[in-house]
Amino acid sequence: MPRFEPKNPNYRAVVTATFAAQQAMRTLGISIARLEPGEVDLTMAYSAEFTQQNGFVHAGIITAGLDTACGIAAFTLMPGDADILTVEFKTNLLAPAKGKRFFFRANVVRPGRTLTFCEARAFAEEDGRETLVASMTGTLMAMMPR
Amino acid sequence: MPRFEPKNPNYRAVVTATFAAQQAMRTLGISIARLEPGEVDLTMAYSAEFTQQNGFVHAGIITAGLDTACGIAAFTLMPGDADILTVEFKTNLLAPAKGKRFFFRANVVRPGRTLTFCEARAFAEEDGRETLVASMTGTLMAMMPR
Amino acid sequence: MPRFEPKNPNYRAVVTATFAAQQAMRTLGISIARLEPGEVDLTMAYSAEFTQQNGFVHAGIITAGLDTACGIAAFTLMPGDADILTVEFKTNLLAPAKGKRFFFRANVVRPGRTLTFCEARAFAEEDGRETLVASMTGTLMAMMPR
Amino acid sequence: MPRFEPKNPNYRAVVTATFAAQQAMRTLGISIARLEPGEVDLTMAYSAEFTQQNGFVHAGIITAGLDTACGIAAFTLMPGDADILTVEFKTNLLAPAKGKRFFFRANVVRPGRTLTFCEARAFAEEDGRETLVASMTGTLMAMMPR
Repeated sequence: MPRFEPKNPNYRAVVTATFAAQQAMRTLGISIARLEPGEVDLTMAYSAEFTQQNGFVHAGIITAGLDTACGIAAFTLMPGDADILTVEFKTNLLAPAKGKRFFFRANVVRPGRTLTFCEARAFAEEDGRETLVASMTGTLMAMMPR
Repeated sequence: MPRFEPKNPNYRAVVTATFAAQQAMRTLGISIARLEPGEVDLTMAYSAEFTQQNGFVHAGIITAGLDTACGIAAFTLMPGDADILTVEFKTNLLAPAKGKRFFFRANVVRPGRTLTFCEARAFAEEDGRETLVASMTGTLMAMMPR
Repeated sequence: MPRFEPKNPNYRAVVTATFAAQQAMRTLGISIARLEPGEVDLTMAYSAEFTQQNGFVHAGIITAGLDTACGIAAFTLMPGDADILTVEFKTNLLAPAKGKRFFFRANVVRPGRTLTFCEARAFAEEDGRETLVASMTGTLMAMMPR
Repeated sequence: MPRFEPKNPNYRAVVTATFAAQQAMRTLGISIARLEPGEVDLTMAYSAEFTQQNGFVHAGIITAGLDTACGIAAFTLMPGDADILTVEFKTNLLAPAKGKRFFFRANVVRPGRTLTFCEARAFAEEDGRETLVASMTGTLMAMMPR
């Protein structure tokens, strides 16, 4: 597992402030559980409000957690004055998103000046047992001020 | 543009009931604007509750709309007793999701007995002008009762 | 279908020279059948040398045609001194790549200064009938000289 | 790293025979370097015949190696009478495919009765040093005889 050196020593403050500014994360009840350079775990409690027709969490909501996890992981390695945007991601849905709690774990695979490539996995937890429910790979872009 | 013949003459009732059973769609304020065999338009008003750090709609929420649009489009062509699940999708984010209203337009490209391949696009509308903000391709799977 | 204005009036010469410099295209027997700003059709004859275990053309070879088609389509809209590289693509395989001749048709969906988003489709032709065998969406990047 | 139990005790013979039947692999000079249940390493020597305009191996050829690696890894876990096809894959290109030798390493993440999800990475080797050049995630499908 590669370990990364953050360009911005103050990365933690910048990243958590940006995360806090995402109203979607508050609405979905997603919070940061762990944050390291190039790595993040997010967590979310089950809520019936975000389910599909079988009572499982909607794939788009799982994707919102995975995408934010990728963004946060990538953002820890960017310069302090960069903004970040998602270029693309693919989600593979591997099992029903059925559980009491969900974890979104992302890590940077290859950081770059402009583009950063990340992987993330979503797990559902129930009765202390975790199930892999989805996998994402995505490309994030650093936007530098002119 | 290919036109498709639904296997289930009653597809409209089955599909709208399944959509209505998705609490996530209600929570996100997404509704069906147009429904034809293999084609659907969904619509969603802007809400600050689902934004990222720049006040644009979060990529995961855009993806929730696109994924549901693909699912609905695919589901119109499935047998009446099938359930549906998403296998995978890729979203490419093409412009900030900035607007008063959003549209998610999906169509089936290739239906299959087990797997159906769909495309969808998300548009942001503001002052009567639409901007393409995201594109999805995805694979949906029909689950038949044993 | 959006039409695009090339930044480089001499785009045709640059693009065809770059294509001609791809030894992989010569080895695979792929050539340009049509070239317009933001659009290209490539064509390839069937060759048993590039087949998988059932005698169909290998998905990787189909992808090579689709990727090059996306690259060429994107490259027509880039400045004359740019180089191009592929960031990512997804291929969905929709039918066996079985035919006498294959076509790879790509078009730019959204050009950008740095990133361009393209779509492409692969068709197999046999007895004058075309079958859609694969679909790609991809992101291409312009590399400018320092 | 999960370890898997093959359904077919004779998986090695079936898989290597299927690989040997892929003329594309012979033409590209790709061979099996390691084969375990749910895991495979393929290897390929550099050949100028499969390069793009800068002399690097073409992204489609890298994808052919990655796709075959995913297919082989998935196939080791399928029943002896199954055939296999690729549903979809996404390739992220992470560095120029520049090297004397290439490795394509795939492993099954989640096997299924119908669909199997795999990951693969491509590495370029030069002077004893390996560079990650591409990453793939893909979905493979088991086709059972009627």
